[in-house]
Amino acid sequence: MSTVYPTCYTGPPLSEVGERATIRAILDAVPSQRNGDDAAVLPLPNPNTRTVVTTDMLVEGRHFRLDWSRATEIGHKAVVQNFADIEAMGARPVAVVLALSAPGHTPLDFITDLARGVGERVSVYSADLAGGDLTGGEHLVVSVSAIGHLGGSLAALTLDAARPGQAVVAAGHIGYSAAGLALLQRYGREGVPGEFSELVNAHLAPVPDPGRGVIARAAGASSMTDNSDGLITDLGTLARRSEVGIDLAGLAIAPDELLTAAGKLLGEDPWTWVLTGGEDHTLIGTTSKDAPSGFRVIGAVHRHCAGTDTPVTIDSVAPAHSVGWDSFPVPGATP
Amino acid sequence: MSTVYPTCYTGPPLSEVGERATIRAILDAVPSQRNGDDAAVLPLPNPNTRTVVTTDMLVEGRHFRLDWSRATEIGHKAVVQNFADIEAMGARPVAVVLALSAPGHTPLDFITDLARGVGERVSVYSADLAGGDLTGGEHLVVSVSAIGHLGGSLAALTLDAARPGQAVVAAGHIGYSAAGLALLQRYGREGVPGEFSELVNAHLAPVPDPGRGVIARAAGASSMTDNSDGLITDLGTLARRSEVGIDLAGLAIAPDELLTAAGKLLGEDPWTWVLTGGEDHTLIGTTSKDAPSGFRVIGAVHRHCAGTDTPVTIDSVAPAHSVGWDSFPVPGATP
Repeated sequence: MSTVYPTCYTGPPLSEVGERATIRAILDAVPSQRNGDDAAVLPLPNPNTRTVVTTDMLVEGRHFRLDWSRATEIGHKAVVQNFADIEAMGARPVAVVLALSAPGHTPLDFITDLARGVGERVSVYSADLAGGDLTGGEHLVVSVSAIGHLGGSLAALTLDAARPGQAVVAAGHIGYSAAGLALLQRYGREGVPGEFSELVNAHLAPVPDPGRGVIARAAGASSMTDNSDGLITDLGTLARRSEVGIDLAGLAIAPDELLTAAGKLLGEDPWTWVLTGGEDHTLIGTTSKDAPSGFRVIGAVHRHCAGTDTPVTIDSVAPAHSVGWDSFPVPGATP
Repeated sequence: MSTVYPTCYTGPPLSEVGERATIRAILDAVPSQRNGDDAAVLPLPNPNTRTVVTTDMLVEGRHFRLDWSRATEIGHKAVVQNFADIEAMGARPVAVVLALSAPGHTPLDFITDLARGVGERVSVYSADLAGGDLTGGEHLVVSVSAIGHLGGSLAALTLDAARPGQAVVAAGHIGYSAAGLALLQRYGREGVPGEFSELVNAHLAPVPDPGRGVIARAAGASSMTDNSDGLITDLGTLARRSEVGIDLAGLAIAPDELLTAAGKLLGEDPWTWVLTGGEDHTLIGTTSKDAPSGFRVIGAVHRHCAGTDTPVTIDSVAPAHSVGWDSFPVPGATP
């Protein structure tokens, strides 16, 4: 299957423009004082600041579809999913680097738009597109790595720091991205009824509220992750790493009116989206204190014996839906 | 063209193992205290230390071939080319993150060997494989981003800091990687005569001498880059960014006995490898002082009017070979 670009991109193909002119066009589209040398030198942080780093790769046909996503949205999504990982440590995103593999027939304006999407999204975080790499390839592959700063002496918000008695808190929608995906699969980008655009946008270009991770760490949160592979999967990882159990409050995570309406339209159970959807990149954590600003309580941490049944329950009952995202799904396996 | 793995990898395919078990196998192969959370928290650097970041992507069939390279060599090369960019700023490499896209039929031991190659090479630099991402994809794509530390208040070794009157210095072989590639193209991995193994290794898994960038910065070097796209191309970039000319001493860069012998065997001009080959990841820079330890003088910087002919000459004559690596080569264009 060869990469097919939407006809709205009318620029010359990379094979006509050449690598160097393409890189110059990217630098024009997303100006940066730091980009353009062998490596980017980031600004000197405050004293006692640690660096946090993460990486995520998006592959055409698996993580995005060119008949659904605009180039800017792909850049946007690549930033958000990386920055969610930075924020899930309680850190502040400061820079990304962008490596792209693209076929020679890729229109130049598709690539500059993708870079512009990266640039627009990093600027929301006062961060920088600091460097990159461009190579040929048979398919479009977008690899972003993100750098964050973790200031001060408070611990990072790791997966292993949830403790019995703490509250489970979340900062954004859960299940919206999966509902958006289901709508796109049924109707395509143009066919989804307008009242569901928030769900479609949550899938194509999620917009988490920047700074929540730093706020949560300052407010005394202990552990944190983001909802990338599915709520039960991600909280299951956190629970196992912390050697605790987590009980979610059904009412606190129940599908809202929009998810319920989408479920009715599609004839699907919206709970599946909430529990297994992922890709919302909503921050989910635990705290002994009040929910940090922007977070709501969705459950509680309790003691749990390792090896005994599922570590995550809903109103004390094991969830019916639990299989989240897996890049290499094994038939019949539970995550 | 589908990815074909050598028969020496006999492990189960990723599609049987699943994503999570594959990631656990990678973490077993390359243990790290920092890997395994949403993002990796790097050690607190000395005060007054800036972070340096770069990224490079390797695509199967373009940057490596599975009938030539072992998995460990691919991991090894991905680290070296990233760390050369970190060192070319005068910084010390401290960590990499590794994003991999691979088909479902990829043997697990190929992936763990590739990660082991990354781990072995970063450990030579006392650095860490700190995190990663694994996704499905039709082809093998290896994306590495590297983080370095730039301590103290000396300027980074940027491309724009060469000044007339300075010496041009280099730290390693030039042209070896291109000669190795030419030998592989003619004879295949098993068929290259044994006396040329150093050239083949320089292409498949180059081994620059770690720490040269930090040494050069401490010793007063001004600008630096690495020989990745070809000597004339890379020095041309440095010269243009610094608004200077560079004259190389023909005797100092002339093909050595090994390159000359390989040229004779293949019926090719070894000067082509020296001037346009790239991928040696040899550090090349400029200094007003003595050549830093491990570097030799290969030329001199002089005044040059922008826009007038080529900024890089050899014994005051424009080189006959100048076209270096381009991911999207445009017919007839000069870089």
